[in-house]
Amino acid sequence: MAKPRPISGFLELLPEQKLAEDRLISAIREVYELHGFLPIETPAVELVSTLASKGVVDREIYVVKRLHADEEEEADLGLHFDLTVPFARYVAQHFSKLHLPFKRYQLQKVWRGERPQKGRFREFYQFDIDIIAREDLPIACDAEIINMLLKAFEVIKAGSFSMLLNSRKVLYGAYEACGVAAEAMKATIIAVDKLSKIGAEGVGKELIEGVGLLPDVADRILNISSAKCSLGELEAWGFRSGVGSALFQEGLRELESIGRLIRPELRSHCMFDMSLARGLDYYTGVVFEVKLTEHPEFGTVASGGRYDDLASQFINQKLPGVGGSIGLTRLIDLLLSKGKVETNKRSTADALISVLSEEQRSECNQVAEVLRSLGIGCDVYYKSPKLGKQIDYAAQLGMRYVLFLSPEGGKIEVKDLQTKQQSVVEDLAKWCASVKSQK
Amino acid sequence: MAKPRPISGFLELLPEQKLAEDRLISAIREVYELHGFLPIETPAVELVSTLASKGVVDREIYVVKRLHADEEEEADLGLHFDLTVPFARYVAQHFSKLHLPFKRYQLQKVWRGERPQKGRFREFYQFDIDIIAREDLPIACDAEIINMLLKAFEVIKAGSFSMLLNSRKVLYGAYEACGVAAEAMKATIIAVDKLSKIGAEGVGKELIEGVGLLPDVADRILNISSAKCSLGELEAWGFRSGVGSALFQEGLRELESIGRLIRPELRSHCMFDMSLARGLDYYTGVVFEVKLTEHPEFGTVASGGRYDDLASQFINQKLPGVGGSIGLTRLIDLLLSKGKVETNKRSTADALISVLSEEQRSECNQVAEVLRSLGIGCDVYYKSPKLGKQIDYAAQLGMRYVLFLSPEGGKIEVKDLQTKQQSVVEDLAKWCASVKSQK
Repeated sequence: MAKPRPISGFLELLPEQKLAEDRLISAIREVYELHGFLPIETPAVELVSTLASKGVVDREIYVVKRLHADEEEEADLGLHFDLTVPFARYVAQHFSKLHLPFKRYQLQKVWRGERPQKGRFREFYQFDIDIIAREDLPIACDAEIINMLLKAFEVIKAGSFSMLLNSRKVLYGAYEACGVAAEAMKATIIAVDKLSKIGAEGVGKELIEGVGLLPDVADRILNISSAKCSLGELEAWGFRSGVGSALFQEGLRELESIGRLIRPELRSHCMFDMSLARGLDYYTGVVFEVKLTEHPEFGTVASGGRYDDLASQFINQKLPGVGGSIGLTRLIDLLLSKGKVETNKRSTADALISVLSEEQRSECNQVAEVLRSLGIGCDVYYKSPKLGKQIDYAAQLGMRYVLFLSPEGGKIEVKDLQTKQQSVVEDLAKWCASVKSQK
Repeated sequence: MAKPRPISGFLELLPEQKLAEDRLISAIREVYELHGFLPIETPAVELVSTLASKGVVDREIYVVKRLHADEEEEADLGLHFDLTVPFARYVAQHFSKLHLPFKRYQLQKVWRGERPQKGRFREFYQFDIDIIAREDLPIACDAEIINMLLKAFEVIKAGSFSMLLNSRKVLYGAYEACGVAAEAMKATIIAVDKLSKIGAEGVGKELIEGVGLLPDVADRILNISSAKCSLGELEAWGFRSGVGSALFQEGLRELESIGRLIRPELRSHCMFDMSLARGLDYYTGVVFEVKLTEHPEFGTVASGGRYDDLASQFINQKLPGVGGSIGLTRLIDLLLSKGKVETNKRSTADALISVLSEEQRSECNQVAEVLRSLGIGCDVYYKSPKLGKQIDYAAQLGMRYVLFLSPEGGKIEVKDLQTKQQSVVEDLAKWCASVKSQK
């Protein structure tokens, strides 16, 4: 008999931590639902052929197979590694039954067979939102996704945060003007995306030795990549940059339009950053990522962007979309490690109904049902030991109130463990209402 | 490019169906939280050695392995096939940080590599509740779990339902009195558990040929297995049965105690049924299952029971517990197929803010934010085509209201798609309050 140990890369929370995660989830979900986004959920598995269809690095995929499968039985199912591929497959599969524009949210775990490290998990929650439409999707949708993510980070109170934005059009246009050929574009983007990790020198080296750019082209790229400004200053920066490319100008105009549609009170979180490229290759317009200002070492906690074509590998429809994803597990792990979420409440109940004797239990249960019907969670102590023991239990679990029923029946008293006051409950309904109003 | 098809045994819902499932989940969760139960969540995977430790039929386990794992890399992780084994492992692993009695709920998907059939899935949600304590757990806890499950079935409005109850003690005691030897007890229980599937004749054959009982012993078992009565009639039935076994009497007394603690308004759903045995071998006291009265063909939608020892394979502690599990996926599949859940609402928004021109969009967004801050979900139309098209979108998604902002600004009108009335909104806050109160 060996005491079980955690499996590396799989986060498991204590109940009070899970309560905190659930509050985080509820807060984000409320933002999404207030915007009319619809929930979907896909199976944990997809066909391996579906997962591999976007040219992803497939060594990260976990395949699943019956333990006692026959030798020749092929493992054709794999756990999804993100929610974008399943979403694309879902849209294609159910296309005739969906209403466009389709605005969905999706909260599920994803799995990657990567080497675990600080802040990187093998199993983690992603909380995605996307809008897709047929043929064309206005820039207002990019702004809506961005507003929703910003709002989500406001309501979860994770401390100060910033969203860096850029556009693939601005990047392509600028790189082209720097002298990068079309066929070297993706490799250039992937190299520049490493700026925050390996620095300018490292990226410069990779641009020259890896991508094969000329040293002065690499220099120009590194130079323009250091540009940062608010979205309101973009026009002036674009003019100063001297880049004439039409694509570059179009990208800037789109970013400015998005900037104007970001709600004024959220704009200060946003910053254009020319070094932001995002490694994934399906983005075609705006790209963005969110970092917690006080904890840059934890990296990106949300990201997303615009893509021209969601599901062409599955369906003969052009479906442009824009979406974003919050890395929820990384976020809760960070917030827990920094003590930024409350974990004192270790119960879903506000009150404990103490039980003085087993004869009293049915009456206690009745009182508990009255409280519950009025929306107050309560626990009835499972045995009937000395009162002190029952009060300790309530205190340990962070319940605020302990109720006592007089043995003669009828009278209820309550002890408030916060104020240490004890008083008679004259009117149970009124008392419940006052507890509820204080929550 | 082939249109993706569903993977057999993996249920995938349309958004409006997922909304219905989420309502079901919320309703059940609310019941559990009002009783002070705490959420936990375990990884989707456990060590295969953990999963196989209870002597389960391990051919149902799905193992996971990296797609590009080396040949010799052993698949040591498997997807959990229920939430009981992970719960036992969780309790053992975090024992020093948990407060006993520990009351937890757990809603997660589980996976079984079984052949899919009607109502049986390879991936499905289980919604579990359990109470565990150290050394001894009073019968009041059995009653609490049963009350909670009955309450859950009441609030989800799945139609009429019944809970069949029995006790392993009653079963063992009665079978012993019928002449079954201790070593044949488990096999006898497993055989009797098939009564509803293969009938008395089939079970009789299995008891004689499979278990090796004498024909008259098998007859006595079949005879006593037909007993059914309310929990209040148990004492009388026990007396009539003539079984003298102390264990049998103890089991009956426990069932009667549970019966007295079941809330009066829920008692009519409960029925003692001597044919109920439950196949799983770790139960030691009360066992129960819930069926929808109108749809017996769908089988059991919830079940559970009392066990003496949760986690002895992981920890040197005697931890008795009692728990129950709702088969949520089977339930929602059934309710959807019978049209018993509402799926007309295809949006989380109540209102659409129509957009007459792109110049108006920022103002529309502002109005939307006011509505959201007052708790009314709303969607701002993504483009600005003719009004008819926007109203169609709202109607298709089941939103009740469409708001129009006058081009001159200031004035807001609302069309109620249900009553077809159109009116001026004089006070937005008041209007939101009235919408909220009607929800």
